[in-house]
Amino acid sequence: MIANFRSDNETPVAEPVLQAMVDANRGTACAYAEDAWSMRLDEAFSALFETDVRVLPLPTGTAANAIALASVTPPWGAVLCHRNAHIYCDESGAPEFYGHGLRLVTGDGDAGKLTPESFAHALHGASGHGVHSYQAAALSLTQCTECGTLYEPGEIAALCGQASDAGLATHLDGARFGNAVAALDCAPADLTWRAGVEMLSFGASKNGCMAAEALVFFGHHERYVTAERLRKRGGHLFSKMRYLSAQLLAYIENDLWLRLAHQANAQAARFAAAVESHPEARLEYPAQANEVFVRWSVPAFERLEAAGIGFLTWPGQDDLGRFVFGHSTTEEDTEQLLAALQALS
Amino acid sequence: MIANFRSDNETPVAEPVLQAMVDANRGTACAYAEDAWSMRLDEAFSALFETDVRVLPLPTGTAANAIALASVTPPWGAVLCHRNAHIYCDESGAPEFYGHGLRLVTGDGDAGKLTPESFAHALHGASGHGVHSYQAAALSLTQCTECGTLYEPGEIAALCGQASDAGLATHLDGARFGNAVAALDCAPADLTWRAGVEMLSFGASKNGCMAAEALVFFGHHERYVTAERLRKRGGHLFSKMRYLSAQLLAYIENDLWLRLAHQANAQAARFAAAVESHPEARLEYPAQANEVFVRWSVPAFERLEAAGIGFLTWPGQDDLGRFVFGHSTTEEDTEQLLAALQALS
Amino acid sequence: MIANFRSDNETPVAEPVLQAMVDANRGTACAYAEDAWSMRLDEAFSALFETDVRVLPLPTGTAANAIALASVTPPWGAVLCHRNAHIYCDESGAPEFYGHGLRLVTGDGDAGKLTPESFAHALHGASGHGVHSYQAAALSLTQCTECGTLYEPGEIAALCGQASDAGLATHLDGARFGNAVAALDCAPADLTWRAGVEMLSFGASKNGCMAAEALVFFGHHERYVTAERLRKRGGHLFSKMRYLSAQLLAYIENDLWLRLAHQANAQAARFAAAVESHPEARLEYPAQANEVFVRWSVPAFERLEAAGIGFLTWPGQDDLGRFVFGHSTTEEDTEQLLAALQALS
Amino acid sequence: MIANFRSDNETPVAEPVLQAMVDANRGTACAYAEDAWSMRLDEAFSALFETDVRVLPLPTGTAANAIALASVTPPWGAVLCHRNAHIYCDESGAPEFYGHGLRLVTGDGDAGKLTPESFAHALHGASGHGVHSYQAAALSLTQCTECGTLYEPGEIAALCGQASDAGLATHLDGARFGNAVAALDCAPADLTWRAGVEMLSFGASKNGCMAAEALVFFGHHERYVTAERLRKRGGHLFSKMRYLSAQLLAYIENDLWLRLAHQANAQAARFAAAVESHPEARLEYPAQANEVFVRWSVPAFERLEAAGIGFLTWPGQDDLGRFVFGHSTTEEDTEQLLAALQALS
Repeated sequence: MIANFRSDNETPVAEPVLQAMVDANRGTACAYAEDAWSMRLDEAFSALFETDVRVLPLPTGTAANAIALASVTPPWGAVLCHRNAHIYCDESGAPEFYGHGLRLVTGDGDAGKLTPESFAHALHGASGHGVHSYQAAALSLTQCTECGTLYEPGEIAALCGQASDAGLATHLDGARFGNAVAALDCAPADLTWRAGVEMLSFGASKNGCMAAEALVFFGHHERYVTAERLRKRGGHLFSKMRYLSAQLLAYIENDLWLRLAHQANAQAARFAAAVESHPEARLEYPAQANEVFVRWSVPAFERLEAAGIGFLTWPGQDDLGRFVFGHSTTEEDTEQLLAALQALS
Repeated sequence: MIANFRSDNETPVAEPVLQAMVDANRGTACAYAEDAWSMRLDEAFSALFETDVRVLPLPTGTAANAIALASVTPPWGAVLCHRNAHIYCDESGAPEFYGHGLRLVTGDGDAGKLTPESFAHALHGASGHGVHSYQAAALSLTQCTECGTLYEPGEIAALCGQASDAGLATHLDGARFGNAVAALDCAPADLTWRAGVEMLSFGASKNGCMAAEALVFFGHHERYVTAERLRKRGGHLFSKMRYLSAQLLAYIENDLWLRLAHQANAQAARFAAAVESHPEARLEYPAQANEVFVRWSVPAFERLEAAGIGFLTWPGQDDLGRFVFGHSTTEEDTEQLLAALQALS
Repeated sequence: MIANFRSDNETPVAEPVLQAMVDANRGTACAYAEDAWSMRLDEAFSALFETDVRVLPLPTGTAANAIALASVTPPWGAVLCHRNAHIYCDESGAPEFYGHGLRLVTGDGDAGKLTPESFAHALHGASGHGVHSYQAAALSLTQCTECGTLYEPGEIAALCGQASDAGLATHLDGARFGNAVAALDCAPADLTWRAGVEMLSFGASKNGCMAAEALVFFGHHERYVTAERLRKRGGHLFSKMRYLSAQLLAYIENDLWLRLAHQANAQAARFAAAVESHPEARLEYPAQANEVFVRWSVPAFERLEAAGIGFLTWPGQDDLGRFVFGHSTTEEDTEQLLAALQALS
Repeated sequence: MIANFRSDNETPVAEPVLQAMVDANRGTACAYAEDAWSMRLDEAFSALFETDVRVLPLPTGTAANAIALASVTPPWGAVLCHRNAHIYCDESGAPEFYGHGLRLVTGDGDAGKLTPESFAHALHGASGHGVHSYQAAALSLTQCTECGTLYEPGEIAALCGQASDAGLATHLDGARFGNAVAALDCAPADLTWRAGVEMLSFGASKNGCMAAEALVFFGHHERYVTAERLRKRGGHLFSKMRYLSAQLLAYIENDLWLRLAHQANAQAARFAAAVESHPEARLEYPAQANEVFVRWSVPAFERLEAAGIGFLTWPGQDDLGRFVFGHSTTEEDTEQLLAALQALS
């Protein structure tokens, strides 16, 4: 493999983040998130989001999503999400596990995005006849979506407004939140609480951290108390939490997270442009952040792989390739990809 | 605080372990435990334990314990343990959570240790009348115990033999397993599978790692398949598992773990000897590894604390102090403690 | 209300069943299903089904369905069913509760019936990438379907064959099993084990019992042991089980259940024929058993109701009426309905 | 067996209760507890308890207990109870199941009764260090106790007062509540809400009903909403609830329940007096209601059994016999017992 575009999960840790962990490695520190690093999280993220937030540091996005949703949904409650959502497709039922049998109800929508109509339709289907049915309890959106596309702030606001009108809590799975903010060039607040989002799984592992996510609560801080319990019972309350929190602090310090995301997005844009001008390959979805989905022939993909380019095809669709650009993707990597693409035209 | 003996959870990461993480930070690597480091775990631990094992890397001991127990216990099954066990007292029901309502049944025993009699008594109480009762399913021992004491290999063998005769699976919570092996000067195998232990929560975080434990399966590898599912649903399948696995590999390489544990145990022994010759303070339990429990007067403890010595008293017993010696405890730390002790005699 | 076609759940208890309960009310009897009535269930149902079965008496269909599915599905397993299935739409997550977060995955199909294609499609969607996804574990069919239609034995055999090939257990929700057997004029075995069904929720409450269902296991009797545990933990192991078992015995004795079902089906057929010849109303689905679904205008339904006819409209579809004929529906009831229908033409 | 004192679970249904079920068997009735009988429960029990209550009809005491406790206890919450409590010893984890891994913490006390001291001790042990421990959430008392003894109203008030001061909800497992009220000759209110009890599992099955218990909520009616959800998910929302509710109405009408209980208690008292004057047998506990526990020799018990007397010995204690007098125990039954006892003196 001369260049790897399989997943941003495969990237290493960004140097400033690793350095912060090394720097944290001095002397003893209080255990179980009572260390100085963890104690600074609320303040640092409140500044970043321009509002008073509570932050629960966690090692994985699956844990953050599951704990967020379980903190607002009773076992007989339903969470609405897009049918491609990570919580539905890729977490082996972590939300159902933490939520003691809650149900995920999926809606449709092009390019990985729920629409007001598809959400209303799913909500209607999830609502029912009293105790015989699940009770709709939360909406979970994904930003960037699983198709590499983006919700505009106004789109999020519309969906969260619908959710709120129906009495639902709102959650954003931001596994690639940095790529979204970088691409939309807006304030983090604009994509979250200003648009009606109440809880955010603020992803950091894919974009430069080692194993660190921040579950952010905008208001409703009583949910944080429940989430803390779920974190402990789930085995996610690290004794040496300082190293996890140090990652998160370094990640948002001096806009590191946005610089890393911009770098990834820029490489993705170069590739997307090349695909657009390619005679055969074509973009499956608008390439709006750091992922590019390409529809092409199976033989072409096989030749691309043989040329040393690493990427994944969609499960069950061998003619749909996904190319992910990470914070560590270099210009040389991208040029290798472009050259291989061009050689196949 | 001039010297900190509050908990080995508060220690930093040992340099070789941190260096291994830094070394692992090169280029991309397969996600979700399919990286080269994680793929080496089975082999490395099989060599360490002199038998064919399967290893599930996890970030916390709570996760390791809960997943181990849930992989052998049905929701209507009971796990037998000492009434001081971490799984019973300190995990907020993680075993009950992962085990979907399994029950922990506790037994007594001096100095944190179950005896054949107390185990038999607890087992008798847990067994019952068919479907009306829980069904005894597993025995979980702790080594070192919560009182800083040790089970001899023969003691483990006797209890595991009883358990096996009753059809129970056997688990060892080895949060301080390194301190135990170092203190008993035996092979890791002697304290585990040779003594009838089927699953081990091999602790590493307290003794030099950042957030890393190895759940080790001796035989019954079908349980590993269940445990993998529980790990994923619990949100513990890290995308960048290489950094967790690299810790474990560095930890056991060249006996680092034993050297670190010996260092901690040796400091503890120095302090224990000083307590024994002290006119007022006295050892509550035999100090067999890296923890020393001291019965003294409340005013004496207050003066010790005022002298800058960090330690914890037992919940509800202000005249019982716990002093924990970690891998990073220096001779200077211990000398500060000895001096403060002497000054109060 | 001059005649009630709202639901067979609203019918009284058939006289022979009630008499059996009265007859059982003599002297003391062993508790917890060790009474003489309960002990006869296996034999009586084995004779009925022409094979060796184990029977777990339960008071509700929801309990029977949930316990059946949970006895074959791990928490990370998926149950495939039609999107209209009672287990998905009407049990408030009882399967997810008993199954500790298992997932129901739905397929489509006209008139409430899965097809080989829709089942294959749903199965494909439910299958995934190892531990990241749920693992397909069971197929649950409904007979009669929620649309009042029937699977032919060959259709069940085809679907169960697909399920078995994919390693899935098979379950039939037979809340109206009597109506199905009566309508298809086949042996109970033909619709169950001979067609590959491994577990049956044999419904009796709707068709003449008070609160009694039989969860029948065809083979795989080790599942029965798990189901017994789930029954106890769910609070369904009645102390005075004799009265529940007596219902079931009376229900199947001398073909009472089939006579009751025939009676209901015959009334439904009369009404269906009248709808077919009506100028405006039309059958939404083939009326194959004891339920008739009628598409008509909202004003027409309002007038029908005003005329004293009890029935329900489908949630969210005021122009789709459901008319259910029970074991206690009399010819006079049906004639009232036919007269009211005719008066509105 | 010439006379059966094994358990009040083995008794038949009292005639007026059975007659009420027969009377309810007329025509159709709304399903799922919206029938006329179920709708009367709140009013009837409010009159009985002299306060505004909500009543959830359920078929078993296990379901009532589990649903009550789960409606006030989070998964990380602990329920305090006596170590002999039915919820701990005989329900195979139903509370843990409905409560998603809640924990039962037991206290000691002679003759099956918690004392202020033993409750305080257990509460102290259950309370802990923040998220690392379970959080004490409820107290559950049993009346009559598992030893056939009684709490005086003042004793209940003291324990409930302690519980309330500690922020715990309070529950009474009243499987034999009728025997208690009859024996203490007080108002039902005196043993419940006036003494600080917030939820009552009002048992009826043992004392004359077929399968009927009333979960009674004194205040905190929002818990009823949760309990309704749990009832449905547990599969306990009967379609034909009228027959269950009719039992409960008949049971409390005209003090039937108290007359039945008095009858049972009176027979027990006769036998207890005979034991007291017996040269060898002796009462293990004060015989205060309808159960008599006798300490005697194993050979004597064997001879008693050989004489045709049915009774049970305590699990693991062959020299401790339990004799239960039910609503259907006749004077002849008791005389047979007395004669057999006397023949063995």
